[in-house]
Amino acid sequence: MAMPPSIASAEGGSTLAMQYRDALLGDVIPFWLRHGMDREHGGIMTALDRDGSVIDTDKSVWFQGRAAWIFATLYNTVEQRPEWLEAARSCVEFTRRHCFAPDGKMYFSVTRDGLPLRMRRYVFSESFAAIANAAFARATGDARSAEDAVKCFAEYLRLSFEPGAMLPKYEPTRPMKGVAAHMIGIAAAQELRANLGDVGVSGRTCSQWIDVSIAEIERDFLKPEHRALMEVVGSQGEVLDHCEGRMLNPGHAIECAWFIMHEGSLRKDARLIGLGTTILDWMWKRGWDGEHGGLLYFTDLRGLPVQEYWHDMKFWWPHNEAIIATLLAWKLTGEPRYAEMHRLVHGWSFAHFPDAEHGEWYGYLHRDGSVSSRAKGGMWKGPFHLPRCLWYCSRLLSDE
Amino acid sequence: MAMPPSIASAEGGSTLAMQYRDALLGDVIPFWLRHGMDREHGGIMTALDRDGSVIDTDKSVWFQGRAAWIFATLYNTVEQRPEWLEAARSCVEFTRRHCFAPDGKMYFSVTRDGLPLRMRRYVFSESFAAIANAAFARATGDARSAEDAVKCFAEYLRLSFEPGAMLPKYEPTRPMKGVAAHMIGIAAAQELRANLGDVGVSGRTCSQWIDVSIAEIERDFLKPEHRALMEVVGSQGEVLDHCEGRMLNPGHAIECAWFIMHEGSLRKDARLIGLGTTILDWMWKRGWDGEHGGLLYFTDLRGLPVQEYWHDMKFWWPHNEAIIATLLAWKLTGEPRYAEMHRLVHGWSFAHFPDAEHGEWYGYLHRDGSVSSRAKGGMWKGPFHLPRCLWYCSRLLSDE
Repeated sequence: MAMPPSIASAEGGSTLAMQYRDALLGDVIPFWLRHGMDREHGGIMTALDRDGSVIDTDKSVWFQGRAAWIFATLYNTVEQRPEWLEAARSCVEFTRRHCFAPDGKMYFSVTRDGLPLRMRRYVFSESFAAIANAAFARATGDARSAEDAVKCFAEYLRLSFEPGAMLPKYEPTRPMKGVAAHMIGIAAAQELRANLGDVGVSGRTCSQWIDVSIAEIERDFLKPEHRALMEVVGSQGEVLDHCEGRMLNPGHAIECAWFIMHEGSLRKDARLIGLGTTILDWMWKRGWDGEHGGLLYFTDLRGLPVQEYWHDMKFWWPHNEAIIATLLAWKLTGEPRYAEMHRLVHGWSFAHFPDAEHGEWYGYLHRDGSVSSRAKGGMWKGPFHLPRCLWYCSRLLSDE
Repeated sequence: MAMPPSIASAEGGSTLAMQYRDALLGDVIPFWLRHGMDREHGGIMTALDRDGSVIDTDKSVWFQGRAAWIFATLYNTVEQRPEWLEAARSCVEFTRRHCFAPDGKMYFSVTRDGLPLRMRRYVFSESFAAIANAAFARATGDARSAEDAVKCFAEYLRLSFEPGAMLPKYEPTRPMKGVAAHMIGIAAAQELRANLGDVGVSGRTCSQWIDVSIAEIERDFLKPEHRALMEVVGSQGEVLDHCEGRMLNPGHAIECAWFIMHEGSLRKDARLIGLGTTILDWMWKRGWDGEHGGLLYFTDLRGLPVQEYWHDMKFWWPHNEAIIATLLAWKLTGEPRYAEMHRLVHGWSFAHFPDAEHGEWYGYLHRDGSVSSRAKGGMWKGPFHLPRCLWYCSRLLSDE
């Protein structure tokens, strides 16, 4: 493959900025607007085949929120295109009407016309509804959306951090906690603050919630002795020497790294920036596949076999997160190794994931980079990681 | 790879009988006895690395039952080796002491010393405990084991088929049922009957439970218009045109096919044998990978993308089940195509799965047959599908 441009040169930087913007506005967003929006029942369908045809009409509740967020965010930050606002409105309204159970907890999936299919024991639907409503409130000035953003985030925090609030998946023998609840909490708080100001939620401001989560990540999940950010630890931060406890998710940790760098950048806090780049450095080493290139999905803390079958597949989203993280690290530190890491992950990603014929990216490649699934979306892939990456990076390179 | 022997010749048949027996008694069973048995706490650990070293001490409840079953069955049918009886006893006793929740439902996983880790909303632990106790009762004459076999199977039936007995995973919008509950029910009933006689359980004999399940499979899951056995259907047998509803599991269906052929063979019932070979024919076509060989894990009824990430991986167990099914179909019908299918799946399996250096089989290969995980076991792989295949096929070829 051709050597991709480097962000370390001004010319490379502007080439990349254009590439990201063109992919976002000329390919990815039109793909989802054209194929995903449900003009009959509202909201978005994300289970799309290679050419955009719908393979399953069931709707992901995560993606009603995530899609609304990206469409409203583009409207707020790129250009006030009415079709983006309408797409965001359609997803927000579908969510309001159909995605909450009688007890207020949000479903995981619903039918095309909004009947409930599945409730799950995690609360990411709530976090994505929160950021959707926050961005939509900014786009429209709609007071109900601003309130809903706060309510959904409060519910996310309660179900994530209040002991006993959620039916546990495990017996009490070996209490565990995951880094995911904190990192999604940080990202949601950042989006609420960006759109609504540093509002109070459940007794703390968004910035204070971010402080709480970063402190807990640093105290309990970051392991300098292993040079790793753990995905799951014991309730006191112990490393659990079992398959699940040792399992690292490098792409997830690198996503967490850029949330923290982003916070450090906003606050001009060198310590936070250093925390983020440290996580990036360690987890890049844990995840980058020296043999085939790209980021492995899971690796084991001690190099032992990972139990999840798809551990060595190349998923699109860790690559999106690593493109952001390496670019942001380079912008914040100027260290040449981040430009080189960015060149590697950008180059591998754009050589393997995009579908030149039908647009958008494949989501699931084998370890060697060959395509495993031709689908463009499903319950777990839709307009989120890829357009967020393209949006964030094009802005960063344009110093917006 | 060298052309594997064909069962269509007498010489090929006796070569294969020896190969299966040698692999069973000289490799697979010694591997698990040496590396898996827990001499401190009893029971078996199945999360083993390539060389047999333990990577996770947590215990699978499924495998306490499955291992006890294979060890006791070898004792009952091959040779009365005390080490096999002791291994079975150890797993049966560990299960009795540690694997039942206070309400009687069985856990999914426990710690090495038997503390509960996870309860799941399915009941296969119960079915495997049932067959373990049945085979152990036959080996020892132990009355409590015979009672426990019946009790566990009754609990399996209640939780599988009594509406509302188990907390549902889905909202009531789109009621679904799976073929798994029926096929595992058939296999468990067959093992109870083989070891305890045609005992009564919850108002029906084992043979009657088999009749009930075969009838429901034929009525609701078999779709001649699609030439497919569905994995999941609506409550009235409707094909659900969604990702989950269209998802076929060829290896699973082929396993079901041989359970039905086995029943047909015992009863000398040509209709049942024909039902089994029909399922085998259809699902072989659905699953056999014309490009790389081997059986794909999941395929879609309409050829659309499958949502599960590992859909095109090659797992060991569908190959074990297909080796049995093709051999049994050939023995029962004498049709040459089954000898050829057996040669294909036997050849591909023995060329790709065995670990010549450390013994046993790898479990998880990429689509192209390269090794994805070097582990020999985990929560889902242990001494069951492979030794059952070697045991069943060597007996079938020796006409035992």
